[in-house]
Amino acid sequence: MANSAVSIRVFSLNCWGIRYLSKECAQRYAMIGDLLSNGEHDIVLLQEVWSEKDFIGLKKKLVFSHPHSHYFKSGVIGSGLAIFSKHRIHDTFLYRYSLNGYPYMAHHGDWFGGKAVGMAIIQVGNLTANVYVTHLHAEYCREKDSYLPHRVVQAWELQQFIRHTSRGADAVILGGDLNMHPQDLGTRLLRSYTGLRDAYLETSQFDGSLKAEIRCDFMSTTKGSVPDKPFPYSDHEALTADLRLKPLISQETTHDNDSTHDSSKVAELVDILTEARTEVKVGLHCAERMRYTATRTGIMGLALLILELAIAAVPWLALGAEQPFPRTSFYLLAALCCTILITTFLLYLFYTMELKSLQGAEDQMRLAVGGLQERLRGVSVDHTPLRKPPEGEEPSDFDTEE
Amino acid sequence: MANSAVSIRVFSLNCWGIRYLSKECAQRYAMIGDLLSNGEHDIVLLQEVWSEKDFIGLKKKLVFSHPHSHYFKSGVIGSGLAIFSKHRIHDTFLYRYSLNGYPYMAHHGDWFGGKAVGMAIIQVGNLTANVYVTHLHAEYCREKDSYLPHRVVQAWELQQFIRHTSRGADAVILGGDLNMHPQDLGTRLLRSYTGLRDAYLETSQFDGSLKAEIRCDFMSTTKGSVPDKPFPYSDHEALTADLRLKPLISQETTHDNDSTHDSSKVAELVDILTEARTEVKVGLHCAERMRYTATRTGIMGLALLILELAIAAVPWLALGAEQPFPRTSFYLLAALCCTILITTFLLYLFYTMELKSLQGAEDQMRLAVGGLQERLRGVSVDHTPLRKPPEGEEPSDFDTEE
Repeated sequence: MANSAVSIRVFSLNCWGIRYLSKECAQRYAMIGDLLSNGEHDIVLLQEVWSEKDFIGLKKKLVFSHPHSHYFKSGVIGSGLAIFSKHRIHDTFLYRYSLNGYPYMAHHGDWFGGKAVGMAIIQVGNLTANVYVTHLHAEYCREKDSYLPHRVVQAWELQQFIRHTSRGADAVILGGDLNMHPQDLGTRLLRSYTGLRDAYLETSQFDGSLKAEIRCDFMSTTKGSVPDKPFPYSDHEALTADLRLKPLISQETTHDNDSTHDSSKVAELVDILTEARTEVKVGLHCAERMRYTATRTGIMGLALLILELAIAAVPWLALGAEQPFPRTSFYLLAALCCTILITTFLLYLFYTMELKSLQGAEDQMRLAVGGLQERLRGVSVDHTPLRKPPEGEEPSDFDTEE
Repeated sequence: MANSAVSIRVFSLNCWGIRYLSKECAQRYAMIGDLLSNGEHDIVLLQEVWSEKDFIGLKKKLVFSHPHSHYFKSGVIGSGLAIFSKHRIHDTFLYRYSLNGYPYMAHHGDWFGGKAVGMAIIQVGNLTANVYVTHLHAEYCREKDSYLPHRVVQAWELQQFIRHTSRGADAVILGGDLNMHPQDLGTRLLRSYTGLRDAYLETSQFDGSLKAEIRCDFMSTTKGSVPDKPFPYSDHEALTADLRLKPLISQETTHDNDSTHDSSKVAELVDILTEARTEVKVGLHCAERMRYTATRTGIMGLALLILELAIAAVPWLALGAEQPFPRTSFYLLAALCCTILITTFLLYLFYTMELKSLQGAEDQMRLAVGGLQERLRGVSVDHTPLRKPPEGEEPSDFDTEE
């Protein structure tokens, strides 16, 4: 038993579960419950389960097929993330992304969802699998994607979270709605940094560990309509992947024999990181511009209010002079000025937070590039010995201010 | 060299760095910089460095003594967290706590700070040290501490973050301003869950790893005034701990030989978790009550607005009848109603987020207690074999709704 392979079937679906707004929401949940309750899937990763009531409904239906479950709570509406499992869930942890769209883009709604990545530690046979489920910011326009910096920062935080929390795991499985194509910047960042592999690209799946070898034997998606049903499961397709986990007997079978291969990988990572930094900088400039606009508008609102009060004060000081303002206009204008002041103040706070998060991500990326370049130089030392600068002489290599 | 002990001197200080508000802020930063630039401390953990300018000032001053540094950005003002190190910082990661006071308690200010825990992976000799710096919510009144549920949830998230990110570390060092006494619930939760030891209590310090043995050789704090200076470094005392890291040659020298000791530890952890759950539930009830009050006030504001509009509409419909409202009062009352509506709506959103975070922590704690009770039963099996319920029959043991 100790070294026999374990098969896991993973299911992932964005459920489109906005009560009263998504079409045929209740009926679709019933269909999803029926599909899952046949017990063919070991691990079920769901997104956009916005209502906890729907989660509880599914939980009741899946009590025999998937006795273990967790619903991740976050934000105003919730994270929408849920995990069902045949195997015992030992521990869970939630990481909320620092950036997630704008509250005033209410029709896009991402901000209110409190997007996050949920982790569950699941014992599969004698292997420990770290299972991650996430939902990144939606892409509303691929050509002119104003949310790209936010999504890149989310992908960055996702890889950080996976990398730092999966050291004790035998296998790492990530499922969810990344809102990215396989060759997009965020996906490349995620793959190259964590060593995860894309089931869709390789049909030989997800990894990030030395203790177990993972292969994807089979992968399928739903294809729009469902036989005998008038509507599909969701406005997204479901994805099912059959994974085979095989414990590695010896850890000696790995790596470190091909430094040229390693250095080309590191160089590729430096390129991807540089691209990501550029994207984050675009976001930084944009946020700075928006904050500047908010500040300017706020100052104009304040000036207008002071002007209005001054005009109104003149006849009040010169007693007897007639009030030049019709009263209604006076109050309306004052209300307008106050609204502008409050709105621009809130926007200023929001853009400041956005700037801080973007700067934070950029700082960390710079630190990472510095470390990788160090490694590259370390590798090249094998061929041409370079003078390594003594410690203390180049703090500017990372974490400098620009 | 491979197995020789490494000494690390760790310094921690809450800098009280509110520009223009904290007394003698600039002079104190100069003093702190002087103290640190003599290079006696390997790792410096600072809190309340609210202004990035002050961080950059320190960075310039410490460029030779501590060439490696990181400033963690978060929230509106910043996290206030900074690390300086003699040894290279390889990687950093920031986790923002889901709960952190209330924005309307502006005079307490915690909410605006974006409280978080920062991690830095530092290479000390041939050991990897995960160094954490954090600042939890302040305690304004020990007898009637309304922020206790928030601080307990922060301590819970802190232990989760440390536990899940430190698996690859040889040594774990946590420093910062926890705003807790050594025997407080949050401290016990942190210690018993992560295996960290308190330098203050034991003068034999911080641990969380099997690969290195850590001892605290010496610990000291500042004592208020500074010789030859008219004021102290901060409104907090600085803490310095001399740690000795000794790589363990064999990993066989540990544990698992005393299951009674282990089971009493697990039982203690169950007790602490139960206490923490109670505290979080108190917070839940409080947040529910506040949300209810906000909802009721909002409904009253709406009713008042409708009533006012109705009274004003009557003479408008019956043309010619005199307007019963003086115009100024009409506008003032309408403005008041709108303010009430907007404020209560924002409060409703905020309390909903607070509820979600508290519920999320409570869920995870329940899951943890379930797992621990399972372990206790597992331990007791050695003495009196109990029938272990088959998988699938007791989903109610964890993650149920109440």
